[in-house]
Amino acid sequence: MSDTNDSLTAILTSARKEILSQGILGLRVADVASDANTSITQIYRFFRNRDGLLARVLGDIYDEQSKMSVEQYLARLPKDSAITIKDLVSAVPVVMTDEQIRFHEMRLQILATSIHNKELNDRLKICSQNLFEIWRTGLDEIQARMAPGETFDERVFFMVFAQQNPYYRTLIDEKFFTPEEYKEFLIEKLRAQ
Amino acid sequence: MSDTNDSLTAILTSARKEILSQGILGLRVADVASDANTSITQIYRFFRNRDGLLARVLGDIYDEQSKMSVEQYLARLPKDSAITIKDLVSAVPVVMTDEQIRFHEMRLQILATSIHNKELNDRLKICSQNLFEIWRTGLDEIQARMAPGETFDERVFFMVFAQQNPYYRTLIDEKFFTPEEYKEFLIEKLRAQ
Repeated sequence: MSDTNDSLTAILTSARKEILSQGILGLRVADVASDANTSITQIYRFFRNRDGLLARVLGDIYDEQSKMSVEQYLARLPKDSAITIKDLVSAVPVVMTDEQIRFHEMRLQILATSIHNKELNDRLKICSQNLFEIWRTGLDEIQARMAPGETFDERVFFMVFAQQNPYYRTLIDEKFFTPEEYKEFLIEKLRAQ
Repeated sequence: MSDTNDSLTAILTSARKEILSQGILGLRVADVASDANTSITQIYRFFRNRDGLLARVLGDIYDEQSKMSVEQYLARLPKDSAITIKDLVSAVPVVMTDEQIRFHEMRLQILATSIHNKELNDRLKICSQNLFEIWRTGLDEIQARMAPGETFDERVFFMVFAQQNPYYRTLIDEKFFTPEEYKEFLIEKLRAQ
């Protein structure tokens, strides 16, 4: 039993390492087997095929990334003082760091892979629905800490932010709008009427 | 000269057919060559390599799809009467048809491909910036036809719709919100304050 767990852990670790260095398309099950000191047969015993392995590893990455992005958002809010609408917008990564761009590139590739990988698609559905609960809890905490007179429209989180693909912003550059204009827009739309 | 053009057209037609039937990953230059009645060497003369061919064909598809989606949006607005905010929202495909889902899946795959295909990425940037101009013209036409007292906030088109990835909606289902709630939200946010 412990051997089985060790073997599973080694396979997951190697597969993730391969994906991060070679890309999703570059993942070769034979390389994972050799790196994890196991056999292709053993990998297929756990995951049935390459798609099954991808569904598990990419699903794990997507899930961790989703949770991390909520945590990072909450961590960017003021810690000791009341929260304003402006704080909520300042915490949105409007201008992305290289790390955030990599993050969204990985998500885009995972989403694209899920189109023809049903197991991964099912997993992403579960991740997305769990994410809803995580945001629900986070937004309740924020609501409880808002400054007097500052009320925000929670729907913007679910109906705007959750559906956005920030990769588009790398394509449009500042042709459509500047970061400042975007922040001003978000402040207006976040403020509950 | 005419032979060169014929050959180019045949290559582009075959490559598109291959991509639509086999997927982007399944595109084999040898199959394109054989279907287009030409040689791999000839294809590389035009496009340097497989990535160059992909950049051209996927860029063309993305460009056509973008223009078509603006045209289809405008065509869903009332033809003979003044336009209201409600009309603007009714024309947004909140519940997607199978065809619209396929459309967004293709876009997602093109975007994902552009991460490691610089030529395609450059092309998508140009497409996105042209799209801005097309929307600008479309919105001016809409503004001129709005019903008295109905004024909309154009920024919603550029800062919300243009950045949305509707594939997310297929993942979250109605857990986050119903189509009716989403439409109500859009009506509120589109109305200029």
